[in-house]
Amino acid sequence: MPHIKVNEDLPGIRSLMAFNPETAAPMGVLANLLLRSNDGLTMAERELIATYVSYLNDCFYCQHSHGAIVACYLNDNNKLVDEVIKDLDHAPVSDKIKALLIVAGSVQKGGKQVTTEQVEAAKSFGASDKDIHDTVLIAAAFCMFNRYVDGLASNTPADLSSYPLRAQQIADKGYGNHIFTNKQPVADEQQA
Amino acid sequence: MPHIKVNEDLPGIRSLMAFNPETAAPMGVLANLLLRSNDGLTMAERELIATYVSYLNDCFYCQHSHGAIVACYLNDNNKLVDEVIKDLDHAPVSDKIKALLIVAGSVQKGGKQVTTEQVEAAKSFGASDKDIHDTVLIAAAFCMFNRYVDGLASNTPADLSSYPLRAQQIADKGYGNHIFTNKQPVADEQQA
Repeated sequence: MPHIKVNEDLPGIRSLMAFNPETAAPMGVLANLLLRSNDGLTMAERELIATYVSYLNDCFYCQHSHGAIVACYLNDNNKLVDEVIKDLDHAPVSDKIKALLIVAGSVQKGGKQVTTEQVEAAKSFGASDKDIHDTVLIAAAFCMFNRYVDGLASNTPADLSSYPLRAQQIADKGYGNHIFTNKQPVADEQQA
Repeated sequence: MPHIKVNEDLPGIRSLMAFNPETAAPMGVLANLLLRSNDGLTMAERELIATYVSYLNDCFYCQHSHGAIVACYLNDNNKLVDEVIKDLDHAPVSDKIKALLIVAGSVQKGGKQVTTEQVEAAKSFGASDKDIHDTVLIAAAFCMFNRYVDGLASNTPADLSSYPLRAQQIADKGYGNHIFTNKQPVADEQQA
């Protein structure tokens, strides 16, 4: 049961963002900027970093929400996410993405856990300063989102079949305040 | 030395926000909403939560930046922050704030570390749902800010005498994009 009185018809972070729409707005903007871009890292790669960090933080809701979005982009029925989580060393991702996921894993433990060697390894496989910046900030942001969701004990749908539908909506329209508060989607107008 | 090429004349998060002004904007808005409000929790109490979490995350830059802001609001030469960090149990804060700092300390460890008992204790001392929401989100947000600052190894001024000046600017004008990117302060116009 959630620690505060939220709309229990809404799952996870959506119930919290409806509780406090004021802070939901910049959080939605930040999610869009970090995850809905193909500048350097692809949208699927960005969501994979978010999923991996959410898995490390043991946040069921975020892990499965964002894992479903990766599966949506790749149309792979969750295969890549499952392989990365099961065994990152042998997962079928590029050396660059593997190195960036290692950086993200360090960020999850704590900022000072990121080593120069980890960053240099990512650079040697072609990661730009922007890729490293984005990886660290995505990982850091999910250390916030995960704690927001679980720190207030928001409702987490245990039925995994409910995640792909929402994932498809986000894959189609992106994050935005509307995703969380059921307001009229702004993204619709922008995309029209 | 920072892991990416940033303006080394700017300290901590300001160098990162200048590197990527796009994401700096919603992060500045979020900081303002969470820290520059007296709705329920006072601005000093909000900064105290941010300082305490930054201390637990061992983020020197954030701890001393926000600690200096608490000192600025209270005009107490850092006395309260020092006492909270040294011994929370016996620090001269209200039972409500002590209970909320315990919740924040759990958030720092991980969302699921927050217990119903901790939340009920805070409520029994008068904390509202909004106070609990804000405490969890401030603590979660500083798990992001701290990791952003240290995960990219941004420059941290070791000289503590440099923090009070910036603290006074934030106490006077709040957070905003201008704080981080040296743009024309929007807050000035709003306050004029």
